[in-house]
Amino acid sequence: MRILLVGAGGVGSAFCAIAARRDFFETIVVTDYSLERAEAAAAQDERYAAARVDASSADAVAALCREHRITHVMNAVDPVFDMPVFEGAFAAGADYLDMAMSLSKPHPERPHEVPGVKLGDEQFAVAEQWEAAGRLALVGIGVEPGLSDVFARYAADHLFSEIDELGTRDGANLVVRDDDGNEVFAPSFSMWTTIEECLNPPVVWEDGAWHTTAPFSEPEVFDFPEGIGPVECVNVEHEEVLLMPRWIDCRRATFKYGLGEEMITILKVLHQLGLDSTEKVSVKGVQVSPRDVVAAVLPDPATIGPRMTGKTCAGLWVTGTGKDAEGRPTGPRSTYLYHVVDNEQTMREYGHQCVVWQTAINPVVALELLATGAWQGSGVLGPEAFDAVPFLDLLTSYGSPWGVRELAP
Amino acid sequence: MRILLVGAGGVGSAFCAIAARRDFFETIVVTDYSLERAEAAAAQDERYAAARVDASSADAVAALCREHRITHVMNAVDPVFDMPVFEGAFAAGADYLDMAMSLSKPHPERPHEVPGVKLGDEQFAVAEQWEAAGRLALVGIGVEPGLSDVFARYAADHLFSEIDELGTRDGANLVVRDDDGNEVFAPSFSMWTTIEECLNPPVVWEDGAWHTTAPFSEPEVFDFPEGIGPVECVNVEHEEVLLMPRWIDCRRATFKYGLGEEMITILKVLHQLGLDSTEKVSVKGVQVSPRDVVAAVLPDPATIGPRMTGKTCAGLWVTGTGKDAEGRPTGPRSTYLYHVVDNEQTMREYGHQCVVWQTAINPVVALELLATGAWQGSGVLGPEAFDAVPFLDLLTSYGSPWGVRELAP
Repeated sequence: MRILLVGAGGVGSAFCAIAARRDFFETIVVTDYSLERAEAAAAQDERYAAARVDASSADAVAALCREHRITHVMNAVDPVFDMPVFEGAFAAGADYLDMAMSLSKPHPERPHEVPGVKLGDEQFAVAEQWEAAGRLALVGIGVEPGLSDVFARYAADHLFSEIDELGTRDGANLVVRDDDGNEVFAPSFSMWTTIEECLNPPVVWEDGAWHTTAPFSEPEVFDFPEGIGPVECVNVEHEEVLLMPRWIDCRRATFKYGLGEEMITILKVLHQLGLDSTEKVSVKGVQVSPRDVVAAVLPDPATIGPRMTGKTCAGLWVTGTGKDAEGRPTGPRSTYLYHVVDNEQTMREYGHQCVVWQTAINPVVALELLATGAWQGSGVLGPEAFDAVPFLDLLTSYGSPWGVRELAP
Repeated sequence: MRILLVGAGGVGSAFCAIAARRDFFETIVVTDYSLERAEAAAAQDERYAAARVDASSADAVAALCREHRITHVMNAVDPVFDMPVFEGAFAAGADYLDMAMSLSKPHPERPHEVPGVKLGDEQFAVAEQWEAAGRLALVGIGVEPGLSDVFARYAADHLFSEIDELGTRDGANLVVRDDDGNEVFAPSFSMWTTIEECLNPPVVWEDGAWHTTAPFSEPEVFDFPEGIGPVECVNVEHEEVLLMPRWIDCRRATFKYGLGEEMITILKVLHQLGLDSTEKVSVKGVQVSPRDVVAAVLPDPATIGPRMTGKTCAGLWVTGTGKDAEGRPTGPRSTYLYHVVDNEQTMREYGHQCVVWQTAINPVVALELLATGAWQGSGVLGPEAFDAVPFLDLLTSYGSPWGVRELAP
């Protein structure tokens, strides 16, 4: 297996650190728009090489694939570049993996009722071509989407005879402090992307169809495990809702993000003032996008790891009818399958903060399953199209176990 | 009386419109950094002339005074230019009026406990020179400060034998709508200045000394008259607190601004994210001040008048011991002296929105009292240094009456 990693930012660098401990591949060619950043990430393993890439060009991606005889393209850049990387991999005959699907566009007239272009629509539109060519695009194989989708498959195969709701729930108790020990506001993930996903109309799968709602809809307090505790969660547009119902029978699929009251207030204010806008405005003679200004005044998420404490939890809350070991329906069941990562542990062991580390470990596991043949397939497939057990076992053997919490049904 | 108006923005333009109906002066030379703006404001009366001014230069202000044989300089520019305009007037032997005093600087170590440089300190520092020269600087003669200070003098002279608190309380129920009739967030006053005054440490006079607090301290809901109703008010740094105790005996002086919960949340978020900062940051190759970006994405307050409805109220809540007509102490008393302006009325009658109109009418009244000799003085004086009765009578005769509401003591 010869991997082209596109993007050496936070997640890409953590991917390199995790993969460096595994022997299932021959090489990883680490690429980025900044050659310096690619070289920094590639420096930690002699099997790695570095190159510059223009991720907006499918031709540039394809040329790199051919030059380095790439078998798998691992896409770790901003989702705005999803399609050129996806198309470049296909053109060069490589398999493809990403952690976020092609972007959505809201419905022009009824954005808070019906979807326009949905997340991944552009990729699924060419699924037959990928299948006919015998090539695999494994889309959405980070932590969310990714591990959450693996949990969905596991729940359908082993825990539930009938599923009412597949509810991804993400929450954390991360705190960042300044040099004086005071808490500061410092998102652990790109603020630009957080604004994008939280202010887009959230999508919900219900009774056989997708619909959208207004941002921050259906707030609920979810009690996260391992000491994180209750966090206010709201509907957010996310890939799981588009992926899970394609392979798993369920009445409802939702994604709720534990933004917490503070972040919800901040996002609402930014939107109210128009500071979420990406269109440039004129400010005393210069042109800037307000959203870029917001991102610029906040600390770089890649730099906050050493000043951060706490845990992050990704998981799937499944409700429906349980089943026993023989597959016979039991009674009503409500189960939360989850994966918790402690920032101090990932900083100590890998030098990467927990949110990017938790995203990056899952595609490494998936690539290893593809390398060993434990996972096989062609077409454009989500993680739930594959057997969950070998994935969860391998994740555990990486030293990062998952958990199950039974809730009152 | 020959007036030099420095600044033809919202308040300056409204000043021109109000003064145009009065005959106590010979000329007003309307000046601005933009000659075009000065000319537009000067066009409405044949006694007016227009000129360009650099308000940051005391020499430029003095030269204009001499050229036009100015007797009174009316300062209506951003308070950042207070000192050069004040000094330019003195150099040219003119009297001076402003609506906001020289700026404060927080205490470097204990900003939320003790004042650093206070509002007006730079002006009061040279009070003896003004007095020796027989010249008058009447500082803080807008609505707040201004009319609120006149109310303080009236309360001390006519309503109270002993004053516990002089509490300026400002509130409004103004709403701005877009073309579709939906409410939009559009501050009726400069957002840059709102951030400045609301995020500076508020100052309070108590038991013979000034102290400061953290921003947004001591929230209270005050019930404003004439249909405005209850609004959440918080401590804000304002001139009244520095002016009133210099002339009027009181145990406590406060200023609380009815920002409302929405504006308080917005200001807190802007501060939390660092978007209130005036220091330039680098954003994709250009340098901008985040606060300038916030101001740039919001509607220009000068343009929202036609889309705004509602009333604004400026007033002074006085508590203490009342007195009867003979000056004998009665019992505990709690009185709100106020001035309410309806936006639809000022738009219809003057073409200016109510907040700038209410600020601008008070210096016109004051200048008329100085022209007739009803008010006389020299030195650096606040409005409370003069008899309140002729001011309130003349304000009423302008068609803009004031009110009194007795509250439960």
